[in-house]
Amino acid sequence: TLGVSSPAPIPASTELRSHTCGQLRASHVGEQVRLHGWAHAVRDRGGVLFVLLRDRYGVVQVTIGDQSPKEAVETGKNIRLEYVVGVEGTVTRRDAAVVNLEMKTGEIEIVATDVKIVSRTKPMPFMIAEQGKGKKADTKKGNQKNSTKTEIAATGGASDDTRLKYRYLDLRKPTLQENLLLRHRATMATRNFLDASGFIEVETPILTKATPEGARDYLVPSRVHPGSWYALPQSPQIYKQLLMVSGFDRYFQITRCFRDEDLRQDRQPEFTQIDLEMSFVERESVLEVAEGIVKCMFAKVLGKQIGEIPRIPYKEAMDRFGVDAPDMRFGMELKDITDAPIIKDSDFSPIKKALDDKGMVKAMVITGAAKASSRKVLDGYTAFVKSYGLSGLLYAKVGNDNTLNGPLSKVTGDKTGFEDFVASALNARLGDVILVACGTPAAVNAGLGRLRVKLGQENGLTATGPEYAFCWVVDFPLFEFDEGAGRYVSVHHPFTSPLPSQMNLLEDESRIGDIMSDAYDLVCNGSEIGGGSIRIHNPEVQQNIFKVLGISEAEQTEKFGFLLDALSFGAPPHGGLALGLERCIMIMAKADSIRDVVAFPKTTSASDLMAGAPAPVSSEQLEELSVESTAQEEKGE
Amino acid sequence: TLGVSSPAPIPASTELRSHTCGQLRASHVGEQVRLHGWAHAVRDRGGVLFVLLRDRYGVVQVTIGDQSPKEAVETGKNIRLEYVVGVEGTVTRRDAAVVNLEMKTGEIEIVATDVKIVSRTKPMPFMIAEQGKGKKADTKKGNQKNSTKTEIAATGGASDDTRLKYRYLDLRKPTLQENLLLRHRATMATRNFLDASGFIEVETPILTKATPEGARDYLVPSRVHPGSWYALPQSPQIYKQLLMVSGFDRYFQITRCFRDEDLRQDRQPEFTQIDLEMSFVERESVLEVAEGIVKCMFAKVLGKQIGEIPRIPYKEAMDRFGVDAPDMRFGMELKDITDAPIIKDSDFSPIKKALDDKGMVKAMVITGAAKASSRKVLDGYTAFVKSYGLSGLLYAKVGNDNTLNGPLSKVTGDKTGFEDFVASALNARLGDVILVACGTPAAVNAGLGRLRVKLGQENGLTATGPEYAFCWVVDFPLFEFDEGAGRYVSVHHPFTSPLPSQMNLLEDESRIGDIMSDAYDLVCNGSEIGGGSIRIHNPEVQQNIFKVLGISEAEQTEKFGFLLDALSFGAPPHGGLALGLERCIMIMAKADSIRDVVAFPKTTSASDLMAGAPAPVSSEQLEELSVESTAQEEKGE
Repeated sequence: TLGVSSPAPIPASTELRSHTCGQLRASHVGEQVRLHGWAHAVRDRGGVLFVLLRDRYGVVQVTIGDQSPKEAVETGKNIRLEYVVGVEGTVTRRDAAVVNLEMKTGEIEIVATDVKIVSRTKPMPFMIAEQGKGKKADTKKGNQKNSTKTEIAATGGASDDTRLKYRYLDLRKPTLQENLLLRHRATMATRNFLDASGFIEVETPILTKATPEGARDYLVPSRVHPGSWYALPQSPQIYKQLLMVSGFDRYFQITRCFRDEDLRQDRQPEFTQIDLEMSFVERESVLEVAEGIVKCMFAKVLGKQIGEIPRIPYKEAMDRFGVDAPDMRFGMELKDITDAPIIKDSDFSPIKKALDDKGMVKAMVITGAAKASSRKVLDGYTAFVKSYGLSGLLYAKVGNDNTLNGPLSKVTGDKTGFEDFVASALNARLGDVILVACGTPAAVNAGLGRLRVKLGQENGLTATGPEYAFCWVVDFPLFEFDEGAGRYVSVHHPFTSPLPSQMNLLEDESRIGDIMSDAYDLVCNGSEIGGGSIRIHNPEVQQNIFKVLGISEAEQTEKFGFLLDALSFGAPPHGGLALGLERCIMIMAKADSIRDVVAFPKTTSASDLMAGAPAPVSSEQLEELSVESTAQEEKGE
Repeated sequence: TLGVSSPAPIPASTELRSHTCGQLRASHVGEQVRLHGWAHAVRDRGGVLFVLLRDRYGVVQVTIGDQSPKEAVETGKNIRLEYVVGVEGTVTRRDAAVVNLEMKTGEIEIVATDVKIVSRTKPMPFMIAEQGKGKKADTKKGNQKNSTKTEIAATGGASDDTRLKYRYLDLRKPTLQENLLLRHRATMATRNFLDASGFIEVETPILTKATPEGARDYLVPSRVHPGSWYALPQSPQIYKQLLMVSGFDRYFQITRCFRDEDLRQDRQPEFTQIDLEMSFVERESVLEVAEGIVKCMFAKVLGKQIGEIPRIPYKEAMDRFGVDAPDMRFGMELKDITDAPIIKDSDFSPIKKALDDKGMVKAMVITGAAKASSRKVLDGYTAFVKSYGLSGLLYAKVGNDNTLNGPLSKVTGDKTGFEDFVASALNARLGDVILVACGTPAAVNAGLGRLRVKLGQENGLTATGPEYAFCWVVDFPLFEFDEGAGRYVSVHHPFTSPLPSQMNLLEDESRIGDIMSDAYDLVCNGSEIGGGSIRIHNPEVQQNIFKVLGISEAEQTEKFGFLLDALSFGAPPHGGLALGLERCIMIMAKADSIRDVVAFPKTTSASDLMAGAPAPVSSEQLEELSVESTAQEEKGE
């Protein structure tokens, strides 16, 4: 605004420091500076003490020797690793022989004129850096995988539990600090992009009502309303749709979601979602925004350009990759050979049985793998696919003139012609391995699809492909039949709109399973990192969907009454999406575990080992909440 | 990064609209446009239909008449208020006579060539705008107070409960939309300022352990650990201190906090805090950052310049204003006259008694109020101060030659000299009213201090003063003696550091009550909008504080063991602060209630009337969590 000036950013210097540890360069030589930081490494070389002082910004060498006052030398002798130390001194150019170009501050050192120990440490449960290896902390962007390994080595093998208990110490490691810094930068980039695109961030409640995401809710007893409970949101889905009914037009929120699930390694009971919703849009507008976020994050944080993101219909993804979140960094696609004459005419009993049961036959070619594929290796593949419901795997190595060596050759029985098929349809060559699976589509796709990903990783195909391979998977089925429940369930959530062209199929009970939804998932390197849909904005359509899902009118009113109500007061066409923030950051940081991108993660049993949560509370507290724990009694029995 | 381009912001146009309703100007005349929005007003003028179409961006007039096709006219007839309508038409210059300069789009209208009803409404529980008054929604920044009144009138007197039940409709009102937009802009400004100042946003857990803020915790039963509970954080206090121990140096988070308190009108069970913490700082650095945030918010969002913010020691604030969050938009300060000879020598029994009990006597002058201060008005003041523990109030009107009319004149008894005192010490003049209170310092300060604020508002002093009067209150006492508990309690929280100069007083039991803390509160217009402190970074000092507070070593370990532990592994000097986001937004938006700056607020009984939370849950859910509700049984008895 005219004539009104915003304050300048606050500098890094404070009452206690003139500079940060990462900031000093040759251009500062001669300056008297004051620094504070942690003793990252301490070396005594014949009476001269070298202390590497570390803070978030980097590492700098402090030299305490002949040129320092006696008191400084005496104090220096008491410095131990990870002490907090205050130093005053002169920025001095290092001798050419000891210039360290691996360190950003490696051309200079601080010749100490005053040294103060600010905070001491008890014996550390693990070290942050090995003695003398401190410089690693300040190397220019190396291969992060390697730096993780270096650090794990540096912990002296501290167990995961020890590292989680002392998480505040583990967080001193440069890798974890870099991951959280990256996370911050990614959310800043996201917010600024969305703000510039007319989105407004609106906070929705954490103490709310059960949402229909299908997972278990975390519950909170109400003190004021005994017997009543809040639920923590699994997502802000309903609230963001209500904001569209309110006319907010473009909403976003980077927000916490909660799911009380049995946790796998890559899940946390609370996680963060980049959540957005838009009014007066069709699918393309939503995809454009999500692509904008991802491209913006990668450009601003990693300096990497993400190109066009292909769109793949769900059916095609299953067909080519066997999974709905395809890893497109490499080929090795599945080939549906069910309808090939050589398969159709086969007398080979596994094939015949699969076809008789309306099953499917698919093949996958592992290029040049014949030599390395011992019987044991191939048996390993068979065991792997069996865990996805296949009864086995047919394989063969391609020999001279496309001859097949292995059980797969039995498919043709007495007939000939398989060799041509191998060369023309499968495009297999001398030295390749062909794998063929037959069975139900679900088992064939899951077995071969997962095996493809496993082999892609093990054979280094993912490493040599493009660094980031994004794709959209679109046109999902709206419903799938749940055999256990004996009814249709939503593939996404019940507010997902059918594709406009398929709306009429809702009237035809026999076509319910064929309806495609206007939902879309964003996939990167084989991981689903987000998803969303165009929502239903017509209350009658919403009620029809509930009917298909077997949700009675009473249940509709009880659970979703306020949403149905809202849709009846002039709801705009709207759609949106959510990106899993941790998934995005894991990919950007090349982190193996979600724990490496969360400041204070919980274990797979949902415990915070550092804070000691969850924990018993006093009976007075429970009484005030009108609840009782039944755990004690159970133990007593 | 070089060569890598960030994507451009996403435009407002979509598949369904070429422009928004607020966007069109005279420069668009002649363009064919496509719009979607809500029917904000509908008027039929002799067969020509005028529909004001509204979205978040504004209101535009659509004209459906002679120039429109027959189908459009027919469809137009069915449009009702708040229907969602799609329109295609030509941007046309209005006749000079009907140009409306109050509307941003007031120079043009859309002559409809196609009209579609997208969504209908059930009968509305209240209206968003009165028929024909729709233009209000688009006036340029008026006096928001007035616009609130206009809207309340427009609701046809819908009750608060009805408005909360249909919150998604209430949120269509321009005032609420503007408040939430302002909130979004304020957090964007804050984040960008802190990011530029080297702060990184780190998310801390919501499922955590009880924190020591003193209010009641919301609890969450653990399914995996029966009998154990998470607590929702009252603030991220401990986590942010741990992040300093980790070396994050500058942390912030705009985060949700939870307190299960009995709610006053201006509280919510969940609220949002701008939370920050810095390492290697003393007080000034933290204040500078907080001032930067506030100045940045006001500059970027309101276009207003906030000047220097004065610092007032707690003692001075109590002395001059009687409260620790002084409203400095006006004077009418309290005068401590305890030591004035005329008071010391008084035989008047209330004064004598107060002085004998080591009490205090304070005076306040209401300028020019003599005429308006009837006996009834003055009795009202007495009743008001009694609710703060005073036994009464002495008052007098100043007459000619500083004579006093009223009970206050009795103070001097037979002696003379009060008149001079009134003129010289109190600076009172003919026509003023003097109020004098005597009693305990707590009662005198609370009674006169609150009365001052009440009178300041009622007499229009707050309205004629500066729009925003900020101040810092510093040098609070560290402890106060809790008579009920028979021990000292923390005035802020137990991690607050004493002032460096006062650290030694901790050793002297008789001086505990005198110790001043390095805490600071930010106050605007008499409301505390934030506060913080320099923290204790030395584990021994922290343990001493716990000892003073009567927290046993066992309790220290159980509750704060991990913090004490962390302080023992090399903790940097650190301090921080939290600003109440809703408090800030209320001041900026001039909102009377916190509900007006929260998208989905709860009632004073902590209910979400729209979603129907809290609500009973199934017994299966509770069983899975190993908890039982005792509420039913209580009802049965």
